[in-house]
Amino acid sequence: MTERLTIYDTTLRDGQQTQGVQFSTEEKQQIAHALDALGVDYIEGGWPGANPTDNAFFEAAPQTTARLTAFGMTKRPGISAQNDDVLAAVLNAGTKSVCIVGKTHEFHVTKALGITLDENLTLLRESIAHLVASGREALFDAEHFFDGYKANPDYALSCLKTVLEAGARWIVICDTNGGTLPAEVGRITAEVIAAGIPGDHLGIHTHDDTENAVACTLAAVDAGARQIQGTLNGLGERCGNANLTTLIPILLLKEPYASRFETGITTKALSGLTRTSRMLDEILNRVPHKQAGFVGASAFAHKAGLHASAIAKDPTTYEHIDPALVGNARIIPMSNQAGQSNLRKRLTEAGLHVDKGDPALGRILEAVKAREAEGYAYDTAQASFELLAREALGQMPELFEVKRYRVTVERRKNKYDKMVSLSEAVVVVKVDGEKRQSVSESMDEVGSDRGPVNALAKALAKDLGQYSSMIEDMRLVDFKVRITQGGTEAVTRVIIDSEDGQGNRWSTVGVSANIVDASFEALLDAIRWKLVRDLKGPKG
Amino acid sequence: MTERLTIYDTTLRDGQQTQGVQFSTEEKQQIAHALDALGVDYIEGGWPGANPTDNAFFEAAPQTTARLTAFGMTKRPGISAQNDDVLAAVLNAGTKSVCIVGKTHEFHVTKALGITLDENLTLLRESIAHLVASGREALFDAEHFFDGYKANPDYALSCLKTVLEAGARWIVICDTNGGTLPAEVGRITAEVIAAGIPGDHLGIHTHDDTENAVACTLAAVDAGARQIQGTLNGLGERCGNANLTTLIPILLLKEPYASRFETGITTKALSGLTRTSRMLDEILNRVPHKQAGFVGASAFAHKAGLHASAIAKDPTTYEHIDPALVGNARIIPMSNQAGQSNLRKRLTEAGLHVDKGDPALGRILEAVKAREAEGYAYDTAQASFELLAREALGQMPELFEVKRYRVTVERRKNKYDKMVSLSEAVVVVKVDGEKRQSVSESMDEVGSDRGPVNALAKALAKDLGQYSSMIEDMRLVDFKVRITQGGTEAVTRVIIDSEDGQGNRWSTVGVSANIVDASFEALLDAIRWKLVRDLKGPKG
Repeated sequence: MTERLTIYDTTLRDGQQTQGVQFSTEEKQQIAHALDALGVDYIEGGWPGANPTDNAFFEAAPQTTARLTAFGMTKRPGISAQNDDVLAAVLNAGTKSVCIVGKTHEFHVTKALGITLDENLTLLRESIAHLVASGREALFDAEHFFDGYKANPDYALSCLKTVLEAGARWIVICDTNGGTLPAEVGRITAEVIAAGIPGDHLGIHTHDDTENAVACTLAAVDAGARQIQGTLNGLGERCGNANLTTLIPILLLKEPYASRFETGITTKALSGLTRTSRMLDEILNRVPHKQAGFVGASAFAHKAGLHASAIAKDPTTYEHIDPALVGNARIIPMSNQAGQSNLRKRLTEAGLHVDKGDPALGRILEAVKAREAEGYAYDTAQASFELLAREALGQMPELFEVKRYRVTVERRKNKYDKMVSLSEAVVVVKVDGEKRQSVSESMDEVGSDRGPVNALAKALAKDLGQYSSMIEDMRLVDFKVRITQGGTEAVTRVIIDSEDGQGNRWSTVGVSANIVDASFEALLDAIRWKLVRDLKGPKG
Repeated sequence: MTERLTIYDTTLRDGQQTQGVQFSTEEKQQIAHALDALGVDYIEGGWPGANPTDNAFFEAAPQTTARLTAFGMTKRPGISAQNDDVLAAVLNAGTKSVCIVGKTHEFHVTKALGITLDENLTLLRESIAHLVASGREALFDAEHFFDGYKANPDYALSCLKTVLEAGARWIVICDTNGGTLPAEVGRITAEVIAAGIPGDHLGIHTHDDTENAVACTLAAVDAGARQIQGTLNGLGERCGNANLTTLIPILLLKEPYASRFETGITTKALSGLTRTSRMLDEILNRVPHKQAGFVGASAFAHKAGLHASAIAKDPTTYEHIDPALVGNARIIPMSNQAGQSNLRKRLTEAGLHVDKGDPALGRILEAVKAREAEGYAYDTAQASFELLAREALGQMPELFEVKRYRVTVERRKNKYDKMVSLSEAVVVVKVDGEKRQSVSESMDEVGSDRGPVNALAKALAKDLGQYSSMIEDMRLVDFKVRITQGGTEAVTRVIIDSEDGQGNRWSTVGVSANIVDASFEALLDAIRWKLVRDLKGPKG
């Protein structure tokens, strides 16, 4: 008999507390859909009333299978739950489930709220009862529960019992400051259950301040808690929350959890985990953490010579799971034979067949290494990788040649005495032996793309002779810039994501000390990839 | 009575297996000195004979208080320990302590070594005996011990007993593949000790594949192991080794460890931990992990408004330790999550005193929120935040006005038929009622900054009248770009880090649909902040 574990995601709320993270409403929607596709049970969407982004998110709330949950706090002292406008704003979001945070640590009751311990119990009771009376499923986040329990276990427990009696479906015990170690989390969780809070009403919420958030969560599950809270990629306040990207594969793949529990996450969804993790980093323009468990680019990279040779005989010698289960891949450093089999796999994905042992494989590896030393990165820029491989294989058709270009950005007052910008680009190309010159401009206040890169893209696309019609449906959808190291100096790396009318999406990379040149190089690759693809037909 | 815990660092050996890390000999020496200053007991320096870097390191071995240890493997089958040249190379490094890795998992004995289980026992015995006979302290790394124990506990234990009887001072049980969870590590460690391996001869070596390396190490210590192995910043094969940068403060500051154990690390050395961690990242040119426990830049950053206001009353409300104990610092970032008390604290840090309840606080918060809705972010761009606050407070001096600017990037063939780029910028400013026009250019192949932003920065700085001399020592040190949402459309956000000759470093932000305009705005803020700061004197 398996037991059900409930997974509660708070990427959109606690994850938003990550220093440097500021979601837009659209980004929150994108992430909500990704979480729903993954199969979590709850998606905590934010705090309605706390900021304009969260308000806008709940106003046009995404349709999800997961329970979309609004977060807030217990009513304030001195007013009734009915008259508390902060709580009202949370309820007005109209979600079926509402999670409110409240105090269970005597020090915080008297110090932060400045009320008596009994007054806090009343406040907890009335807040939860108000949610239930409003027809909502009520969840209670017991803030600082572990520290509170250590200071005054009777009082901390009486808070939990009060909200349980008031009708809370889930009571989530939080190690808010992240300082409690796994053994203590396990012991206290067991004591909470022994005191009468049923495990199937008990959740665990931990933080990673001692790098133990995952272990603390497992300790609470071992002790009987049946809801786990966390975030994708371990985003969150300070050092982050418990990392669901790690916990999910542990619970689904590792014993004793795999046999004992079931969750809403399917094997198929699990195999998309690495992509989901990288997608979140892309949305946030964060560098993916290479050494992340399960989904990191290095998680199955075998660098030690002894390991690499054993892996070639049997991957279980140095891998605790099959990387494909989480959508990740084995990496054997590019320098040895195994590097070539890796490369062949990637070429096949691009529709390029190269025989085992073909000397071209060595040439491509060398070219990739040389480019990477200059600052290029081909992890995501698969389209640029493919073009590089085609060059090395002599399979790159002659398309067109850019002879020169010039782009100007000018910012000055217009006739209404308002500062406006104008970008103008001139591009000279040679197609089929013929020189063609195009000019394009992007103006302030017209559309949303108004910079030099857009002006260059428009000019380049304007007249490519026989190819012009083939790139009409192309669109630049994202643009990421990073300063990186190219040899001994700092260079700019630009990654461009493009899309076409057939729903294809591809990424290209450009590197230069000049941001415009780097962007132009990535743009050129984007167009060349599209042309090569369409010239050879969709399946090569 | 406290017990002694031994700390064994393998940054220079297992840490070298990190994907993308390639130490030079000089870097290994630098790191060895930093580890010695920290106070670890053992420094594993590398594998003599395995590569030229490690050979050179041991040839000119640094003088350390810690025991410098050479790493190697047990003798190969079919030759005597005396005649094994791989083992001889390890001994020839001349270290007092030698650690060798060997098999304890029946699958690896028969599959990887291709010998019988008994032959492996003989091999282990002879290898350790040879180290002891050579007058060395012998350590044994029991590779794949946990997986081996799960497969065949009797055989795995017989390997440990064999090396103990042969004279090994320490037996280190390794979770080589990183797949064993903390509860199981604790149980097996206790069983190993119950089977006769004394805890004060037992070490633990874990990997972070399930994000549990720290928890697994603590579980082994709880069970009685008295040596812990790990690396600085958790470097290491795949997802890395147990992170000593996290384990050290846990063992020194958190209970039950702080009262129960002593180590070679002093309180003073602990207060240098954050610097040691950042220094290692600098040596490796890695971006420090902001959310790292204890030493991360975000480890004590309080972004949630409720947290920030409580922290202002009493830091223990949301901090599990005092950040100064590990040489880190508290940060209250500004964002639309933040409340007025947070804001006042941040203003005070900027030398701006505003009374509690001053209506200006509300105005500043509104201004910040409105800007964030347009795509600005003030978490890191403290200098731009300060300028915004000064405007709202009417404390922003008139400096200069930019009337217009124009920047051109041109790429074409030079007279040697090589493609080169030229960026040219013209800026017109009004300073002290006088219009000044400056022009500047950045060429390909000259210096490392060759883009339009650099050309604009140079033109802007060229003639600012009385202010020119004040910004002479300013330098743009980093430049980050991302596409984000500004209201309903995509905009570009640029964050610029600047530095001056007095060692100040500050960050500014600009947002526009045009990347050049966004960059120019961030540049202007950088100059304005520097001028305001120097005009009012370093302490306001």
